[in-house]
Amino acid sequence: MSTEPCVLCATEGGIPVFQGEKFRVIRAQEAGFPAFYRVIWMAHVAELSDLDAPDLALCMAAVVAVERVLREQLQPTKINLAALGNMVAHLHWHVIARFDWDSHFPAPVWATAQREPEAAALAQVTAKLGVLDQALAQSLTALILPA
Amino acid sequence: MSTEPCVLCATEGGIPVFQGEKFRVIRAQEAGFPAFYRVIWMAHVAELSDLDAPDLALCMAAVVAVERVLREQLQPTKINLAALGNMVAHLHWHVIARFDWDSHFPAPVWATAQREPEAAALAQVTAKLGVLDQALAQSLTALILPA
Repeated sequence: MSTEPCVLCATEGGIPVFQGEKFRVIRAQEAGFPAFYRVIWMAHVAELSDLDAPDLALCMAAVVAVERVLREQLQPTKINLAALGNMVAHLHWHVIARFDWDSHFPAPVWATAQREPEAAALAQVTAKLGVLDQALAQSLTALILPA
Repeated sequence: MSTEPCVLCATEGGIPVFQGEKFRVIRAQEAGFPAFYRVIWMAHVAELSDLDAPDLALCMAAVVAVERVLREQLQPTKINLAALGNMVAHLHWHVIARFDWDSHFPAPVWATAQREPEAAALAQVTAKLGVLDQALAQSLTALILPA
């Protein structure tokens, strides 16, 4: 294993959207995919199954909360969820709003691009990012409020 | 939306490993990735957030159960989890044991191959598939047993 500090322990990993005690959410700034967020577990664990049952439920509740806001705000063609971590083995979920006009659809964002994204549609999503980030922060704050 | 029947409604989608009331698990038979399983939700829904809370918990418990068995039986370098569904918008989870010797590591399996997989290591994983399938069936049966 590498002795370098983990990049998700050492840095924010993107534009901060929400900071909780157990997880944070950042916007990833991946070119061509404006509505690409990551739910990053704060503790340095590699796999989802490293979490105990309450933490696992909280982690997935956060992922689903992000998914719900993306669906409500953007009506994407599809949501893509992935926990890979081959490069950075620190538990983080990719939550990506996909559109039939994006550069890779219907292929995964990690595959080869199929086309240039539709510029007008891309600009429309990008223009909504402020509202989107705010809606996400609100939803995630509500999620962790004590019942 | 397509009027063709959904391939995951119409067909098994792989080698059957476990059949429950709410979900099934199949082995995917993707070349170079012997330990590639899918947890397929039986009801035709597109997104994880289409599930109610108990179904969502069950779905993720199934994914984590598959992950745990893969880790125990194979000690993979990493587990990859993904719910994409851009091609087939019927909720299914890819659960993939990844190894540093596989054809794509550390890239996602959907990216461009980086090398030929190590033949001996690949054969070793392939030789374990019978035991693996059985361990998965056992673990998933235990998961859905009434408490």
